[in-house]
Amino acid sequence: MKIWQKDKGSLKEVERFTIGRDPEFDLILAPFDVLGSMAHAIMLKEINLLDGQELEKLLSGLREIYFEIEKGEFQIEEGVEDVHSQVEFLLIKRYGEVGKKLHSGRSRNDQVLVDLKLFYRSAIRDLVEASQDLFDLLISLSEKHKNDLMPGYTHTQLAMPSSFGIWFGSFAESLAEDMELLKAAYKLSNKNPLGSAAGYGSSFPLNRTLTTELLGFDDLHHNVINAQNSRGKTERNLAFAIAGLAGTLNKLASDICIFMNQHFGFISFPDELTTGSSIMPHKKNPDVFELIRAKTNQMQSLPIQVNLLLTNLTTGYHRDLQLLKESIFPGIDSLLDCLDMSVFMLKEIKVKNGILEDPFYKHVFSVEVVNNMVLEGMPFRDAYKKVGIDIEKDDFNPDQSKVSHTHEGSIGNLCTKEIQSKMEKSIKEFDFEKTSASLIKLIQG
Amino acid sequence: MKIWQKDKGSLKEVERFTIGRDPEFDLILAPFDVLGSMAHAIMLKEINLLDGQELEKLLSGLREIYFEIEKGEFQIEEGVEDVHSQVEFLLIKRYGEVGKKLHSGRSRNDQVLVDLKLFYRSAIRDLVEASQDLFDLLISLSEKHKNDLMPGYTHTQLAMPSSFGIWFGSFAESLAEDMELLKAAYKLSNKNPLGSAAGYGSSFPLNRTLTTELLGFDDLHHNVINAQNSRGKTERNLAFAIAGLAGTLNKLASDICIFMNQHFGFISFPDELTTGSSIMPHKKNPDVFELIRAKTNQMQSLPIQVNLLLTNLTTGYHRDLQLLKESIFPGIDSLLDCLDMSVFMLKEIKVKNGILEDPFYKHVFSVEVVNNMVLEGMPFRDAYKKVGIDIEKDDFNPDQSKVSHTHEGSIGNLCTKEIQSKMEKSIKEFDFEKTSASLIKLIQG
Amino acid sequence: MKIWQKDKGSLKEVERFTIGRDPEFDLILAPFDVLGSMAHAIMLKEINLLDGQELEKLLSGLREIYFEIEKGEFQIEEGVEDVHSQVEFLLIKRYGEVGKKLHSGRSRNDQVLVDLKLFYRSAIRDLVEASQDLFDLLISLSEKHKNDLMPGYTHTQLAMPSSFGIWFGSFAESLAEDMELLKAAYKLSNKNPLGSAAGYGSSFPLNRTLTTELLGFDDLHHNVINAQNSRGKTERNLAFAIAGLAGTLNKLASDICIFMNQHFGFISFPDELTTGSSIMPHKKNPDVFELIRAKTNQMQSLPIQVNLLLTNLTTGYHRDLQLLKESIFPGIDSLLDCLDMSVFMLKEIKVKNGILEDPFYKHVFSVEVVNNMVLEGMPFRDAYKKVGIDIEKDDFNPDQSKVSHTHEGSIGNLCTKEIQSKMEKSIKEFDFEKTSASLIKLIQG
Amino acid sequence: MKIWQKDKGSLKEVERFTIGRDPEFDLILAPFDVLGSMAHAIMLKEINLLDGQELEKLLSGLREIYFEIEKGEFQIEEGVEDVHSQVEFLLIKRYGEVGKKLHSGRSRNDQVLVDLKLFYRSAIRDLVEASQDLFDLLISLSEKHKNDLMPGYTHTQLAMPSSFGIWFGSFAESLAEDMELLKAAYKLSNKNPLGSAAGYGSSFPLNRTLTTELLGFDDLHHNVINAQNSRGKTERNLAFAIAGLAGTLNKLASDICIFMNQHFGFISFPDELTTGSSIMPHKKNPDVFELIRAKTNQMQSLPIQVNLLLTNLTTGYHRDLQLLKESIFPGIDSLLDCLDMSVFMLKEIKVKNGILEDPFYKHVFSVEVVNNMVLEGMPFRDAYKKVGIDIEKDDFNPDQSKVSHTHEGSIGNLCTKEIQSKMEKSIKEFDFEKTSASLIKLIQG
Repeated sequence: MKIWQKDKGSLKEVERFTIGRDPEFDLILAPFDVLGSMAHAIMLKEINLLDGQELEKLLSGLREIYFEIEKGEFQIEEGVEDVHSQVEFLLIKRYGEVGKKLHSGRSRNDQVLVDLKLFYRSAIRDLVEASQDLFDLLISLSEKHKNDLMPGYTHTQLAMPSSFGIWFGSFAESLAEDMELLKAAYKLSNKNPLGSAAGYGSSFPLNRTLTTELLGFDDLHHNVINAQNSRGKTERNLAFAIAGLAGTLNKLASDICIFMNQHFGFISFPDELTTGSSIMPHKKNPDVFELIRAKTNQMQSLPIQVNLLLTNLTTGYHRDLQLLKESIFPGIDSLLDCLDMSVFMLKEIKVKNGILEDPFYKHVFSVEVVNNMVLEGMPFRDAYKKVGIDIEKDDFNPDQSKVSHTHEGSIGNLCTKEIQSKMEKSIKEFDFEKTSASLIKLIQG
Repeated sequence: MKIWQKDKGSLKEVERFTIGRDPEFDLILAPFDVLGSMAHAIMLKEINLLDGQELEKLLSGLREIYFEIEKGEFQIEEGVEDVHSQVEFLLIKRYGEVGKKLHSGRSRNDQVLVDLKLFYRSAIRDLVEASQDLFDLLISLSEKHKNDLMPGYTHTQLAMPSSFGIWFGSFAESLAEDMELLKAAYKLSNKNPLGSAAGYGSSFPLNRTLTTELLGFDDLHHNVINAQNSRGKTERNLAFAIAGLAGTLNKLASDICIFMNQHFGFISFPDELTTGSSIMPHKKNPDVFELIRAKTNQMQSLPIQVNLLLTNLTTGYHRDLQLLKESIFPGIDSLLDCLDMSVFMLKEIKVKNGILEDPFYKHVFSVEVVNNMVLEGMPFRDAYKKVGIDIEKDDFNPDQSKVSHTHEGSIGNLCTKEIQSKMEKSIKEFDFEKTSASLIKLIQG
Repeated sequence: MKIWQKDKGSLKEVERFTIGRDPEFDLILAPFDVLGSMAHAIMLKEINLLDGQELEKLLSGLREIYFEIEKGEFQIEEGVEDVHSQVEFLLIKRYGEVGKKLHSGRSRNDQVLVDLKLFYRSAIRDLVEASQDLFDLLISLSEKHKNDLMPGYTHTQLAMPSSFGIWFGSFAESLAEDMELLKAAYKLSNKNPLGSAAGYGSSFPLNRTLTTELLGFDDLHHNVINAQNSRGKTERNLAFAIAGLAGTLNKLASDICIFMNQHFGFISFPDELTTGSSIMPHKKNPDVFELIRAKTNQMQSLPIQVNLLLTNLTTGYHRDLQLLKESIFPGIDSLLDCLDMSVFMLKEIKVKNGILEDPFYKHVFSVEVVNNMVLEGMPFRDAYKKVGIDIEKDDFNPDQSKVSHTHEGSIGNLCTKEIQSKMEKSIKEFDFEKTSASLIKLIQG
Repeated sequence: MKIWQKDKGSLKEVERFTIGRDPEFDLILAPFDVLGSMAHAIMLKEINLLDGQELEKLLSGLREIYFEIEKGEFQIEEGVEDVHSQVEFLLIKRYGEVGKKLHSGRSRNDQVLVDLKLFYRSAIRDLVEASQDLFDLLISLSEKHKNDLMPGYTHTQLAMPSSFGIWFGSFAESLAEDMELLKAAYKLSNKNPLGSAAGYGSSFPLNRTLTTELLGFDDLHHNVINAQNSRGKTERNLAFAIAGLAGTLNKLASDICIFMNQHFGFISFPDELTTGSSIMPHKKNPDVFELIRAKTNQMQSLPIQVNLLLTNLTTGYHRDLQLLKESIFPGIDSLLDCLDMSVFMLKEIKVKNGILEDPFYKHVFSVEVVNNMVLEGMPFRDAYKKVGIDIEKDDFNPDQSKVSHTHEGSIGNLCTKEIQSKMEKSIKEFDFEKTSASLIKLIQG
């Protein structure tokens, strides 16, 4: 049975089709739905739509449900449309008439919007923390391998000396920079839509500033239409952030897959972390990183998946928006999984030593030799030509034992501290603690 | 002739194919290329790769070229590969041997990267300013029409009372919120890649901190591999920001196209701003907004266009990256154009008065009536049922003359000041003046 | 335990990550896997890698499993890696050593490829049949409403007289034309990859022509590398076909959502097929068509989802390809559901009569009037100008009672027969019967 | 001045914005516009809207213009809106009043639609012919190198013996299979939309069957709404076909880029076809193939670019559709260019001999050894285990001098003839000659 039903039967088929995967997603939203309702109830009391006793009953009931959710005891009963209805039915069943008053001054539109915002805030925090774990590991690998040289490539061609130190470090700094998109997504998630009702506001004298504070939001979507239109837009920004981070992991995984190829043979993993073949006994395949590469590619389609749902939709809620969850919820999970698996695998990575000492690599030292001539006074273009001719005549025998790069961010000067402080500064700006504090206060009363 | 040529002819066909549209894009990059070279030259003097006299010659030459570009007198000569070569050739032609020394300690890779970063910074500033113009107009339209009611829709069905005030205002606040993605793009554009050379640093004792300051960058990409890998990543963030802003314009244009439909008839424009038909004499078509709708949809594909070029590419430069310009450069132009045309058109928009007074719209007042019952003490679910029954019995005659919404962001309380200060605060954080000041100092010496 | 395991433990975490959603998808592939194995076994006997008795055992065992799958009694046991392993384990358990011989001359690569091809063939047939159901309904609605006029729009502006007859009929013809992309997908699915082993063929003297016939394939991928590379390419073609059909449904759903809007009010559905609102008692929302619109938009991202997985992958199998199933399998289901729901709903559609008789619509007759003048001898451009002036002077009063269009495909001449024969001809070319016959023979022995 | 103008000035700015890149694209459409007009004129005479003399004048005028276009003497004059207007103005200028009669019974909507269909037919023929050139070259390379072995990879890991013969041949067969999507696109382009007017037909007694025959169309879009809605849908099918072909080239280019890497070193090109570096004198970069890889990736976004323009648009023309040209026209050119450059480069490809004789590759023979054991009677799973153990003990020394694969499509049996006849059969089905014959007849009268 549905709340909006007017004593008419609705065909099962329509129900199945319209509900879709919501029961699965609604369980994820359940705790956030309860939090939103607590803030809403407190506000209703403030504007005299509830009296003190009514508020007490509702808050007790909601806390009860919150802890049932935490303990995994909450479920959406057969025949109940969604999480919002389930919570309301439980309140009515347990506390009577007062349960019916909770929905005053809101619509399912702003109710689900606030649930989503609270969930996204929480999910973004998870993503930031998982990123930080990977960042820390990359930094320590960068320092550990700062003297292990390897070739650097351009055009997939051998180019110049590089090192595992700067290679690992590059992904650390990239992750630090990826935090900006997550922050843009967080800022949009951290705005209160509650009180926008069905997208056009309410004739009740709602106090939206109060619910903003109670739920630890940084700000509110002031304009009610804009609040409603943030459905989809919030997901778009989150899709961008996911795709951004995914881009960093994709390059890492792509490098690893090629570096594990036997022609390169630069890195390896313990046998139990690679997989075999049903027909070729000697294979040790980089399946985990192939899948990280593939999954991070899947994530690159999230922005367009979101945009296809939004495109050309006019102002106001459309049922199309329901499907945003089908793209974003699994996208968050998949990215978290890829971050965690990257940590899991990289903890065990083994790096080959002394790669560049092989004469095979002598050409990667050509620029070093050109530069030495320049430092001794030859104009660059002339030095460049001379080395080119030497190489063509096969008369090029550089010292392959050492590379002396000293400038900021180079092989000999990784700037690890600077990169770490970039990450710290960025994470601090999220100010996750402020938000947590508000929610804890709300739950504990 | 190409700088890297080693006395061998390169086939014309390969040249044509590999150069592609670069001559067209290089002219856009020209002033930024000169600025990058000025900073590089000053730094080379600092680390003793140039002497004082040599620096003077180079700076004079570069300033000369800069002003030629400003005056439209610069061009890439027949047979010269790109803007970088053209500038170098001019310097050699005019100042001799010293011109050959400028390329010491850099590669075309970091040279073009710094050009692109400087161009993107400048382009983002243009986008922010164009957004602000549209924002200001929307705010003034919102205030002007705050008492003009219109229906609000959900599911494209008549739903509740709305107003032109909150409708215009919603796009203003949306634009203000879009600034966050532009800021994330700006932050990534505002990091110095110079000194990363071909992506693996240099054996010269470059002073990257100095060029960072000279070019007004906020920070540097410390890690040289990360600096190189920011090619593509910078464009991805910019593509996200463009798609984000485009989303706001798309909804505005979609609304306008439907509101101009004769069944709605809510808004109109002077005849000279609409177009006719070759066969239907009565048509006044919203072509400009159809095209804004379409162009902003095109922009939604920019992220995937960028990502398709980057996907599965390993660390280091690949020629694939050249094509990023073909997506991003026209994307920037198109968004600027859509912002400007939105202003151009909305200045002339005419709004129909008294729409909601028509009995056709009486049902949109149902929630108002329900809420009034609640304010008089009836539980929400009961009031909701009663009104539903009245409507079914066609016994529903609300007062359609006024709507009294008072909470934050509603019809009667637009929160214009709060939305304006959101925009101001956001724009201030870009700190465009700091950057301009550095560049002006560099040009003026 | 895995077939390729070499007495070493593989970490649970790697297993979880690499297996992903395969158990769910493998159940779908199970019957096709058995069919592929039957054909492979018969071929092995033909080339003397099995003797007659061995073949008999294997075929009995496989038929047994096939019917267990049909009855829903088949499952992949805990700890068994995939459907292929499960089938092999069952055969060994039940028939001993001979079970181990089945995998001779094939790899999991060509085994899963043939499973997928057989599944896609079957799925495409389902899509064609569901399309035909919708086609038939649209044709009958087109005939039923051939005299019900409605306005036609260009630029979302009232333009010319149209009818429900040509409107319904347009989607029927569009569906008929969509069959071509399904056919292109079918042709690629209908080529035998078996015998390509891991993508480089086999040193066994396999008879690929025989398995091609046994499985009812129309042809084979001759080149073994091309057979392997058809993984992904087959899914791309199928994604195109899905997106193509989805485009037709998307337009239908978009039209319906707007035609149900109260300003238009052209069509309606029984109350039990529309949904209400939690706050607005009068709403009757077109949720089913909003979701069809949204789901068909989701399908537009399938091609890019597939392409992102394939892009820049070199020749040969990569684990990335496993994830193709995550896009395509649900995509097929979703499209089938949308086709079925379109039929379910359209059976109940009600159309408003006499729409164009309202003077509101008089301008849509302007071209009719122009044309009549032309038929009486006035040059087109002059007639066009005159009518334009009449309209501007509000001196335009056409006869709104009838429209006489007679040419092919117009209001008065729907060409229903021609459209039907287009559909019939197209479906005949799939030649589904031939394929079915082969499979039935294989199963029944 | 515009044809539909009603003595009112239209602002320049609106004109600039709405015309966009059409002048550039209209020149491409010009010859097809003239052909469409010729057929339309002949039909108008047939239904007595023109007399014999008028038709003669129009046909002479149109032929004159056609040859001016052929000779490059045609241009769209300043102030003329588009190619359609330019042709009409020229006719009026040269032949007087009769020029005004040509537009009877059509709209710019069906006029541009027929132009586009004719252009796409012609472009698809170009694509097919360019594909055939590449196909022929690949076939001859496949035969030339049928005895040159190379390793085959799975998971980018060394896997099994392969050969240049099957590697080249795989792309040939892939191209042959790509023809199916081109055919689906061709079929949709090869349907006559003329007579659908503005998308709702005409009150003139048009003879659409006649124009279908005159223009060599295979069929007509019968339903006029469907004819109009084929705008966009035709481009979608073409985008699919382009993306499909691009997928084949992308894999070829990806392989070449990695095979040119020094670790592999399997293939090379003459120096003049590779490019150097501004800083690394030894580089010989595969820029052409990197750009083919990148351009074919760009093409993968064409379907989504098209779909974004179409999504959620209701029935009937919208100005949005104009922008389809901006995606499709350059997409066609780019694919043609990539096909031609692939031929240009592959003519010069050099292949390394004797690769697999190096002991480095001995493991790729493991499956051969397993299979030999099986042929001697050992069950597959046992042989597989034994070889695995030998390899782990480093006791594996296969004969690397020969590979004997004999089945269809394998190293020793390329099935070149079968692949060639697949291509021939596919191309024959386009029946290009029939179409050409009609157009030639139309032009020559």
